[in-house]
Amino acid sequence: MAHSYYNQESHGPYQTLDLGPFVLDNGDTIRNLALAYATFGSLSPAKDNAILFPTWYSGTSKILEQAYIGPGRALDPERYFIILVNQIGNGLSSAPHNQPSPFNAARFPRVSISDDVRAQYRLVTEHFGIERLQLVLGGSMGAQQTYEWAVRYPEQVLRAAPIAGTARASVHNRLVVEGLIAAIASDPAFDNGWYAEPGLVHRGLRRHAQLFATKVFSSRLFEQEGWRALGFSSVDDFLSGFVEQHFLQQDPNNLILLARKWQDSDVSRNTSGDLKKALSHITATTFVVAVDEDDLFPLADIVAEQTLVPQSHLKRLSSPWGHLAIFGLDQAYRDNIDSVLKELLATP
Amino acid sequence: MAHSYYNQESHGPYQTLDLGPFVLDNGDTIRNLALAYATFGSLSPAKDNAILFPTWYSGTSKILEQAYIGPGRALDPERYFIILVNQIGNGLSSAPHNQPSPFNAARFPRVSISDDVRAQYRLVTEHFGIERLQLVLGGSMGAQQTYEWAVRYPEQVLRAAPIAGTARASVHNRLVVEGLIAAIASDPAFDNGWYAEPGLVHRGLRRHAQLFATKVFSSRLFEQEGWRALGFSSVDDFLSGFVEQHFLQQDPNNLILLARKWQDSDVSRNTSGDLKKALSHITATTFVVAVDEDDLFPLADIVAEQTLVPQSHLKRLSSPWGHLAIFGLDQAYRDNIDSVLKELLATP
Repeated sequence: MAHSYYNQESHGPYQTLDLGPFVLDNGDTIRNLALAYATFGSLSPAKDNAILFPTWYSGTSKILEQAYIGPGRALDPERYFIILVNQIGNGLSSAPHNQPSPFNAARFPRVSISDDVRAQYRLVTEHFGIERLQLVLGGSMGAQQTYEWAVRYPEQVLRAAPIAGTARASVHNRLVVEGLIAAIASDPAFDNGWYAEPGLVHRGLRRHAQLFATKVFSSRLFEQEGWRALGFSSVDDFLSGFVEQHFLQQDPNNLILLARKWQDSDVSRNTSGDLKKALSHITATTFVVAVDEDDLFPLADIVAEQTLVPQSHLKRLSSPWGHLAIFGLDQAYRDNIDSVLKELLATP
Repeated sequence: MAHSYYNQESHGPYQTLDLGPFVLDNGDTIRNLALAYATFGSLSPAKDNAILFPTWYSGTSKILEQAYIGPGRALDPERYFIILVNQIGNGLSSAPHNQPSPFNAARFPRVSISDDVRAQYRLVTEHFGIERLQLVLGGSMGAQQTYEWAVRYPEQVLRAAPIAGTARASVHNRLVVEGLIAAIASDPAFDNGWYAEPGLVHRGLRRHAQLFATKVFSSRLFEQEGWRALGFSSVDDFLSGFVEQHFLQQDPNNLILLARKWQDSDVSRNTSGDLKKALSHITATTFVVAVDEDDLFPLADIVAEQTLVPQSHLKRLSSPWGHLAIFGLDQAYRDNIDSVLKELLATP
């Protein structure tokens, strides 16, 4: 299963935990669920210094490492044992592109955020023997997983930091994601997921990338030509060199699996659809982080949920990068998120 | 050229002014430019009570009439002579779908906002003999035309009200519109604009409609199920019954022509790219109207321009409908915009 993107060279080093046959919420089964993860720092003898950080849409543990971890930073490997876990379908963990037939490609089962969290729970408790996490955090789809952790396993989560994401995908958010899916799926080369090579679907992937760009960057970023900081020479140079480049290396079925999981995200499945009740289960000290310029997860949607989370605080950051601030592309965001996370980690 | 949508039954009564061969800014020619318009009220003997209101993307004079005109309203036909003018390419005026071969369909020339305004100037001055307009107003692409009028013909425009639109399309806005275009153009049935029947392109038109919906309605509208006020039973029922229905009746080449015109919109073409200088030409009393929840023309972009317009005031409205507030679907918007326009019309 050699792939030019989903491998140790591009995203390692990472380890893989084999969880065997894994029955999903919907009753379907992943025959041999592999969860890829990377760790930083050392687990203390008391196993009381662990932090869990799941990935976002189309991301792997590598960008989390690059954007958030380092000595002196909030996620300091000299102090904490940090577990970066790759969500199911991201291509390092089990995903449509790496499963053997007949369960591969378009046949890979639909996965939910809570499936991820149940699998991650086994990694944390069975594999590492950790009973309580000092912090669970994540951005975007990582925030969805963070909320699910805090609702489902309150005993295990001392602190939580959902960043630029929600506990239940809004109707509007689901529509936006449907547009992203349609951009790929409408490419005739996609062939309902049965393309011979992912590269054949490049037109759909490019359209997906362009649409993604309209939602994840703020208008201000373009007016200020903030992309120049990354070394690009024009808007089109940036859109192709950064956004298309990011997605063209990935597998269309993987992306669509992740996107559907994103749409389905909803902690109120734990409480028969009662969101208020679900969020009231959270016992973690929770810093709900929003980026003011984020059009994908607008402030108003985030605040509406935050007010339902006991012992929570809203932390607003500002960045011309909009939703993509979570990539840590600007130093100001890195400084600001570190300061928020340090404050959270310092709470008793 | 019978068409089930672009006709007097659906959008009339309207008149048509034949402007003969019309040379566009880009040097190309529309062989026989027809400008469709509808008027309300009577032109005073002194010809000093005229208001001009151009159309927005995919709209015709009919929706402007329904949403903005009536006795007791700001645009009161008992007091004003109101000219609703259909922009080039909207299908009532000359457009790809109604031109004879060889200048039809994909071959219809690319048109700019300033082409529209130059044609409308002839309608106003040559046809009606009006020297000064009491007010030019418009929403979205209508705001683009309003700005162009105020910059290009300051002597003719006493007051201006650009609503939910900008004088120069932002980079981000142009990207969003590129996504709308790609949704249609990527449909293999579009065939580079040479489809045999517009109905063949329904998949592209539907994707276009869905994307449009993600940009023009606020997240709040969906959370509050505001679409129920229009009699729809579910989100999908609303998206198909309202948004797809609106676009499926229209011609794909017409829509793409309008979208490209939207992208090119830029009053600074009058001043070699100097936006500040262009806007400084405006002598009209200008009320720049923004809808707080509008993601398509965000408040920050609108404010950045408004501060460059002499004698201008920013008027902020709020509506869960977001950008589509301009359709006048809720009574609160109609009341609020009327109050803004009445205040503007009362200025000396």
